[in-house]
Amino acid sequence: MRSAFYISDGTALTSETFGHAILSLFPVQFRHRTLPFIDDSEKAQQVVEEINTAFRDSGERPLIFHTFVDSALKQVIVRSEGVCYDFLDHYVAPVQAELGVAAKPKTNRTHGIHQDYNFRIDAVNYTLANDDGVTTRNYGEADIILIGASRTGKTPTCLYLALQYGIKAANYPLTEEDMADLQLPYDLKMHRHKLFGLTIDPDRLQQIRDARRSNSRYASMEQCQFEIDQIEGLYRREAIPYVNSTHASVEEIAAKIMTTARLERHRY
Amino acid sequence: MRSAFYISDGTALTSETFGHAILSLFPVQFRHRTLPFIDDSEKAQQVVEEINTAFRDSGERPLIFHTFVDSALKQVIVRSEGVCYDFLDHYVAPVQAELGVAAKPKTNRTHGIHQDYNFRIDAVNYTLANDDGVTTRNYGEADIILIGASRTGKTPTCLYLALQYGIKAANYPLTEEDMADLQLPYDLKMHRHKLFGLTIDPDRLQQIRDARRSNSRYASMEQCQFEIDQIEGLYRREAIPYVNSTHASVEEIAAKIMTTARLERHRY
Repeated sequence: MRSAFYISDGTALTSETFGHAILSLFPVQFRHRTLPFIDDSEKAQQVVEEINTAFRDSGERPLIFHTFVDSALKQVIVRSEGVCYDFLDHYVAPVQAELGVAAKPKTNRTHGIHQDYNFRIDAVNYTLANDDGVTTRNYGEADIILIGASRTGKTPTCLYLALQYGIKAANYPLTEEDMADLQLPYDLKMHRHKLFGLTIDPDRLQQIRDARRSNSRYASMEQCQFEIDQIEGLYRREAIPYVNSTHASVEEIAAKIMTTARLERHRY
Repeated sequence: MRSAFYISDGTALTSETFGHAILSLFPVQFRHRTLPFIDDSEKAQQVVEEINTAFRDSGERPLIFHTFVDSALKQVIVRSEGVCYDFLDHYVAPVQAELGVAAKPKTNRTHGIHQDYNFRIDAVNYTLANDDGVTTRNYGEADIILIGASRTGKTPTCLYLALQYGIKAANYPLTEEDMADLQLPYDLKMHRHKLFGLTIDPDRLQQIRDARRSNSRYASMEQCQFEIDQIEGLYRREAIPYVNSTHASVEEIAAKIMTTARLERHRY
């Protein structure tokens, strides 16, 4: 199998995103390899050997996506047997011309620690302390409160919003006991402008629940269908914005919530 | 202030990463705006109006970083008053030539839902259930077990590893009570090949703890210094790899752990 390498003197997150975005356009399988913190010539030389070995083993030149701040290290990698792509190559000069300001490369400025950093950690702590409806006392501080049936993806979505964007995201489950004649709980009514609903196709919910509690009433198709009907009815009645998580990744759900609820990213 | 826009018919995560990586090279402040899911011509036209308004208000042409799969929508954006950069422009043709395979653009392939998806959600559930040493019963399943003093960043790092890479990351705090004559707890000894330490500069630890429990013994400089000395001594004695989180973001800590511990990304 052909290899793809993502290499940088920083975290290599940018080169990964860059390479994945390009390779995702091609129906080709790759062996992926990420090599962060290649920050001296000895490490760079080891990388070259690894690239050249991959070439010898597969007979195909590896694709190399790299973003080096240190141009001497970049030159070492470029002399390997890989086909090298540096996405800064084509953009720094035109952006520099447009801004009329010289570029000042600095390692790790993209994914390093910033002033926003404590904000993100505080948001993670908030989210953990306000997960799954354990308390509703801190909803005044919330940026958003996700609601929905059990197992619709509330917790991972909240954690993603907190970790990536510093958003204080609480979540509250609408549980089996509430379902007959479902009303918005009193503690939520007070914060209705912060509410955002998740829903999911009943057959997918049934699958997920069955994997946890096989053959239970909780995991039965009737119960899943009933809960989703009740909950979507509530969302519509109360004009709560909502998103269906069935075919969406946590990144997609988060992006939809942020856009619909007009949440500010606390991090750029 | 000049505006930067990140626009896509998908999540816009790729255009954000692309744009941030370039703009981080320049010591210039921007007003940032991310616009995901611009997937019909009406939405694209609204975006053009927003770009043109930003131009009129600031007198400077906004920088537009975009990654559209639908080329008709892209054409609408390109006709705005913004200066447009599409990072696929320069790379699709050469990669296509190298692979000898035609590109097949598809929305959301980069940040969409994949087979690896349940893996990530399972990892988040694992991490939440094995946070902060609440149980050591499931360490057989762990991919990694982070250890360290209280407030060194174990929980956010574990959640990041789980959410981003599907890594089952448990964590165990080395607490005040253990400190005199610190030994590796028995439950950890059994899994010593999975252990990874976090440490932090004592003055930074003191700041973080003081913000939580002001003027406590827990937050005193002596206690912080003592714990870090004991813990780093333990790491060295037991040959446990460790990383200092003081000046590192969760992305950087995670990248260092993955590389040092040779963890496989369960997601690409």
